[in-house]
Amino acid sequence: MLSKVGRYENVVEPFHCDVNHELFMGHLGNHLLNAADFHSSDRGFGMSYLNTVNKTWVLSRLVIEMEEMPMQYRHFFVETWVESAMRYFTSRNFRVEGQDGKTLGFGRSIWALIDLDSRQPSNLLEINNGDIVKWVETDKECPIAKPGRVNMSSDVALCGERQAKYSDVDVNGHVNSVKYIEHVLDMFPLEKFVENRVARFEVAYVAESYFGDTLRFYREHSAQTDDGEEYTLSIAKRNEDGTETECVRSLVRFKKK
Amino acid sequence: MLSKVGRYENVVEPFHCDVNHELFMGHLGNHLLNAADFHSSDRGFGMSYLNTVNKTWVLSRLVIEMEEMPMQYRHFFVETWVESAMRYFTSRNFRVEGQDGKTLGFGRSIWALIDLDSRQPSNLLEINNGDIVKWVETDKECPIAKPGRVNMSSDVALCGERQAKYSDVDVNGHVNSVKYIEHVLDMFPLEKFVENRVARFEVAYVAESYFGDTLRFYREHSAQTDDGEEYTLSIAKRNEDGTETECVRSLVRFKKK
Repeated sequence: MLSKVGRYENVVEPFHCDVNHELFMGHLGNHLLNAADFHSSDRGFGMSYLNTVNKTWVLSRLVIEMEEMPMQYRHFFVETWVESAMRYFTSRNFRVEGQDGKTLGFGRSIWALIDLDSRQPSNLLEINNGDIVKWVETDKECPIAKPGRVNMSSDVALCGERQAKYSDVDVNGHVNSVKYIEHVLDMFPLEKFVENRVARFEVAYVAESYFGDTLRFYREHSAQTDDGEEYTLSIAKRNEDGTETECVRSLVRFKKK
Repeated sequence: MLSKVGRYENVVEPFHCDVNHELFMGHLGNHLLNAADFHSSDRGFGMSYLNTVNKTWVLSRLVIEMEEMPMQYRHFFVETWVESAMRYFTSRNFRVEGQDGKTLGFGRSIWALIDLDSRQPSNLLEINNGDIVKWVETDKECPIAKPGRVNMSSDVALCGERQAKYSDVDVNGHVNSVKYIEHVLDMFPLEKFVENRVARFEVAYVAESYFGDTLRFYREHSAQTDDGEEYTLSIAKRNEDGTETECVRSLVRFKKK
């Protein structure tokens, strides 16, 4: 009998580490999304099954708060569980545990179910007669704020531009969720990560972009506190008519080391 | 008693797959380099030990030939062994095996040992009284051509430029070997990978680049055959005086599907 909470072991590979010898946030995100995939597949509502009924999960929000990042070569565990399942959205939480049992951080995510042809939202309670509900775990704690609205001023200057390349796009031809995390953090200079740690990372996936799209990067310094600062970041694609469509909105909270 | 050949199991994670649902070459490279790291560490000549005597391995050449790339969600195995060890270079081979036991491809690599302070080559036969020699395996077959000299014309036009970002640099502050593989393949349009498979990928690491360096990309169509074509690629960094230093030279052989 499977438990409601899935638990997956990982190791911090050397090429997945930043200059601090700590796991890159993008790779941590990848481990969380893998855990979500394994957990849902094992319980009958994963991507592989959904594809047979012409549906798929779409990640809408991801937020990660870390007290400490796993270090190079260390093992760590990702726990994941479904916190709630409503008609059009399900929220899934994560806990990251170090090899010594210490809690390193938590994550929250929100997913929609869509129809593969229409790309429209689909009622996730109709999958396997609402089976997902029986996996909902409400007792396990996830003591970080839910993803919120991330505001950005309208006059923020362009801070970079890049074409979406072969390595950016996933099996569906979309720029993948993990690569966006890399692109967001690549808007900062290296010293930012040497002098601070990323205490909260939040991302909303708003629209899809594709191979060849010109991605435009925006960064706004949105708050300064005694122990750190906060930035709002946005990635938009340039449309043929010169307008832009926002693909990703993100918030990064740095804490001074 | 450890065997001369190390064997490591991997799984093809969904976000590590390209539009063909196949493992990206960069991620395969990462798995090979991990195998090299695990194999050498377990046998007493890995990075962690070398760092204690102020030395490190530097990857000089990597070549991968694949008949078939591992597909999404499949397990696969990487075997690795030391083919030879001379004073300043050691060559290490790889075999990639599918979950059904089929050989998917092979790899070859050449490594130098350097002193961490002087960055000069160091005699690898002096490490642990030449212990590495007892791990040399000469009987195991690696039926692919050794890395060769990759020629490029002198008048190739610039095909792209990019600053090295936070996600590019490893624990040593250098643009990492795996990211270079991504950057090389990102010089091609997506259709190239839909219509062809990469039959041989070869890379020579010539000089190091750092965060903030402007990387310049060059691509030359170097051969056309009935069943495919070959490209020579180069990544150079721009120096302050306007000159360039080549960091990576690569060869990609495509075969029509």
